[in-house]
Amino acid sequence: MERNPLLSLVGAGPGDPELITLKAIRTIGRARVILYDALANEALLEYAAPGAIIRFTGKRYGCHALSQEEINQLIVAEALEHGHVVRLKGGDPFVFGRAVEEITAARNAGIAVEIVPGISSALAVPATAMIPLTSRGTAESFWVTTGTTRSGSISGDVYLAAQSTATVVILMAMSRLEAIMDIFIYYGKADMPVAIIQDGTTASQKMVTGTVKDISFRAQQAGLGNPAVIIAGEVVGLQADLLPAYVQGLTATQKKPAPHEER
Amino acid sequence: MERNPLLSLVGAGPGDPELITLKAIRTIGRARVILYDALANEALLEYAAPGAIIRFTGKRYGCHALSQEEINQLIVAEALEHGHVVRLKGGDPFVFGRAVEEITAARNAGIAVEIVPGISSALAVPATAMIPLTSRGTAESFWVTTGTTRSGSISGDVYLAAQSTATVVILMAMSRLEAIMDIFIYYGKADMPVAIIQDGTTASQKMVTGTVKDISFRAQQAGLGNPAVIIAGEVVGLQADLLPAYVQGLTATQKKPAPHEER
Ligand SMILES: C[S@@+](CC[C@H](N)C(=O)[O-])C[C@H]1O[C@@H](n2cnc3c(N)ncnc32)[C@H](O)[C@@H]1O
Ligand SMILES: C[S@@+](CC[C@H](N)C(=O)[O-])C[C@H]1O[C@@H](n2cnc3c(N)ncnc32)[C@H](O)[C@@H]1O
Repeated sequence: MERNPLLSLVGAGPGDPELITLKAIRTIGRARVILYDALANEALLEYAAPGAIIRFTGKRYGCHALSQEEINQLIVAEALEHGHVVRLKGGDPFVFGRAVEEITAARNAGIAVEIVPGISSALAVPATAMIPLTSRGTAESFWVTTGTTRSGSISGDVYLAAQSTATVVILMAMSRLEAIMDIFIYYGKADMPVAIIQDGTTASQKMVTGTVKDISFRAQQAGLGNPAVIIAGEVVGLQADLLPAYVQGLTATQKKPAPHEER
Repeated sequence: MERNPLLSLVGAGPGDPELITLKAIRTIGRARVILYDALANEALLEYAAPGAIIRFTGKRYGCHALSQEEINQLIVAEALEHGHVVRLKGGDPFVFGRAVEEITAARNAGIAVEIVPGISSALAVPATAMIPLTSRGTAESFWVTTGTTRSGSISGDVYLAAQSTATVVILMAMSRLEAIMDIFIYYGKADMPVAIIQDGTTASQKMVTGTVKDISFRAQQAGLGNPAVIIAGEVVGLQADLLPAYVQGLTATQKKPAPHEER
C-alpha cells in the first residue's frame, strides 16, 4: 500500500462487476482509502485491501450527497492523511465524470494523479444490447453527449447532434426526454429508430425501442428512469437482425434476461 | 469449455494488457478457438485454455491478411467444428470493428453470439495521456469518427464534426492527416489544439501536440504513424494543466515513459 499521497481515478465500468479491468482491480487493492460514487457497483469494494477506509460519496436513503467541492476537499484530506486514495467512478472517469475538477484539486495540493480508464456506459450499454455504434454502410461515427447541462437546460450539442449523420448517444437525459426528442423531430428525424436502456449490463436492465416520435410515450409506459442511455440512429434498427443470434453470456454475473425478453 | 457453436466477440482493450476486463479473461479461458487481430495484445493469449487453437487473422511479416470474408468463413467453420470461438479484437468490438459482419455470418450459420465490451482506444488513449474528452465548461460532448471510409476517401462525418462544438476523436486517419486538418482550417479551426497519440497505453506510446495548422508537420517530424488516435478540441489544452499532476501508474505493465517526457 502506498503511503505517499496519490489519487487514482478509477473507472468502475457500467454496472456488471465483471466489466472491470485488471488494472482497476489491482489499483483498488493497493489503496488505503476508497471513495466511491453511486454508479460504481459495490461488489467491486471486495477488491479493497483489508483495513482500507471505504466511503460513499453519492446520494442515498434521503441523505444529502456530498457536493463536488466537498468531494474535492475529502480527496485532498484523505490523500494527505493516508496516502493512496482511489476515486471509484461509474463507467470511465473522463466521460461526464467531473474528473478534471478532482485532478485540479489534487494537483493544487501537490498530490500525484493517475488515471485508470474504465468501460463507459455510453459504449458498453448499447453493445451489450446488440446495438453497434458504428457499422459499415450504416454509421461511420458516434457522438456522445449529455442531455442536460449544469444549469438544467438542454445542451446546445444536442441540437447539433440531431442534425448530424452520427449515431447519437445521450447520457443524463431522462428528465428532458420529450424535449430532446422534439429537437430531433424539428430536424426531420421523427422516424429515426431510438433505444433507451436503463441499468444496462446489470440484473435489472430494462430496454425500450421505438422511433423519435413515440419513444417518450413508450419509455413512460415502461416506467424507465435513471440511469439510462438513449441511442438514436439507424444502427438501432440493426438490433432486430442481430438479436436472434444473441445469447446470454455464460458467466455468473450475467443472470439478467436477454434483452429481447424485455421488449 | 463449450462444445456448442458459440461466437464471443471480445474487446481486447487498447494495448496495455491490464486494460482488459475480467469478463474478457474468463471468456478467453473458456474458448476452444481464439482468432485474434493485429491490434489485440498477444500477451492476452496467455489466458487461453491449454490446448486451445490460436490463430492470427491480421497482416504480418509480409504475409497477406485474411479478408473480412475469409475471417467470417473461418469463424463459422471453427465454431461448427470445435464449438466456442473467441474473436479477440483491439479496443471495443463495436467501434469500427466489423463486428456486424461477423455476427451476421454467425447468425446465418445458426451460431449463437455474445458480446464482451472492451476499453476502446478512442476513449482510453486520450485518457491515459490526461486528455479528458468532456469537461464542464470546455466540452459537453465528444464525437468519434473514422478518418477514411471503405473507398479510402475522407468520411463525410469529418466535415460535420469539424463544424461541431464536440471534442473530435478520429481513428484510422493518419494517411489523410493533412487533408483532414485542411477541413478543420476551412471551418475556421486553424488554432484549435490537437493531439496525436500513437500506440497509446503501450511501452512504445508516442505523442505530439500542436494546433490544427501545425500538427501535420509536427507529426511528420516525430515520425508518427499507425495506429494513432487524433484528438481535436479545446480539451487538449487542459492537458498542460493536468499533466503536472500525472504520475506513472505503479503497476508492472506501465513501464512506458510518462507522456510529458515525450513531448
Ligand atoms: C454522470 S454520468 C457518468 C457516466 C460514466 N462516467 C460512464 O462513462 O458511464 C451518469 C450517466 O451515465 C449513464 N449510465 C451510467 N451507468 C449506466 C447504466 N448501467 N445503464 C444506463 N445508463 C448508465 C446514465 O445516462 C447516467 O445518467
Ligand atoms: C479498425 S480500428 C479499431 C478500433 C478498436 N475497435 C477500438 O475500439 O479501439 C483501428 C484504429 O484504432 C485506433 N487505435 C487502436 N489501438 C490504438 C492505440 N493503442 N493507440 C492509438 N490508436 C489506436 C487507430 O486509430 C487505429 O487505426
